[in-house]
Amino acid sequence: MRILGIDPGTLRVGYGVIDAGVTRSRALVYAVVTCDPRASVADRLARVFEALRRAIDEHAPDAVAIEDGFVGPNPRSALRIGEGRGAAMVAASSAGLPVHAYAPSVVKRSVAGTGRAGKHPVAEMVRALLGLPELPPADAADALAVALCHAQHAEVEARGLGLLAR
Amino acid sequence: MRILGIDPGTLRVGYGVIDAGVTRSRALVYAVVTCDPRASVADRLARVFEALRRAIDEHAPDAVAIEDGFVGPNPRSALRIGEGRGAAMVAASSAGLPVHAYAPSVVKRSVAGTGRAGKHPVAEMVRALLGLPELPPADAADALAVALCHAQHAEVEARGLGLLAR
Repeated sequence: MRILGIDPGTLRVGYGVIDAGVTRSRALVYAVVTCDPRASVADRLARVFEALRRAIDEHAPDAVAIEDGFVGPNPRSALRIGEGRGAAMVAASSAGLPVHAYAPSVVKRSVAGTGRAGKHPVAEMVRALLGLPELPPADAADALAVALCHAQHAEVEARGLGLLAR
Repeated sequence: MRILGIDPGTLRVGYGVIDAGVTRSRALVYAVVTCDPRASVADRLARVFEALRRAIDEHAPDAVAIEDGFVGPNPRSALRIGEGRGAAMVAASSAGLPVHAYAPSVVKRSVAGTGRAGKHPVAEMVRALLGLPELPPADAADALAVALCHAQHAEVEARGLGLLAR
């Protein structure tokens, strides 16, 4: 199964595509889209949308996994985070792809064994699990982590259905 | 100037296209996109994105005006509102259209003369200004109102530039 993972944001958006195998997963691509902070919100969202659409066209994932961003106490910040998520989700869903959202703690537990793992241990585990030659940049590592998290959940679900079908 | 106005939302999105003239503006189309509350957020956003894209393809607006939605104190709700706005903005900006955002109070003042006007007086003024045979549904009226608001602001700006150019 090929999965596009997205770590949405308002100025930096990480993404990564993995081929999830039974014994091993590998990364096809990972990158961070950076936006000009002086550009309008609409222009920044268009940039993110187009970068994700290009990745979808190029790598034809079967599913998309997105981090269900942390929301602080400030509603104005939450609105901006939501705009970034909306643009990312629409890039996937309007391309006909199923979108799966995971809370940050679920992603961390899935990849690093604990929901409280810091940025660096998560990136280290992502590097190890995908056999990458170097540590991916933080936002790309988070995107690959959510893709790996979905691969794990999808596999567990598939096994469960297999048991039921017996 | 042809303007697409959008009143974004998570379950109901109003839109309307107007041809803004110097003496009179007229509505080409207005509608409300409703989403199935049982559908996933991603699917609802895709539905909104596609409806707006169809309206853009069909009516070829020069600009898009969007209401800068009211944000309450709840960050979770603000996140959801943001997702709706993100999907709507990306439909416009990824089609190469400039997006202008207006606060609800600015829209109300522009159309009904006061920033505290209620839903019904705004819809009544929209009906009168556009010479509509009947009151448009609330979300469509708000979308037409933000389009009219942008027409007014764009005209004032154009006049200002005209004065400077003399």
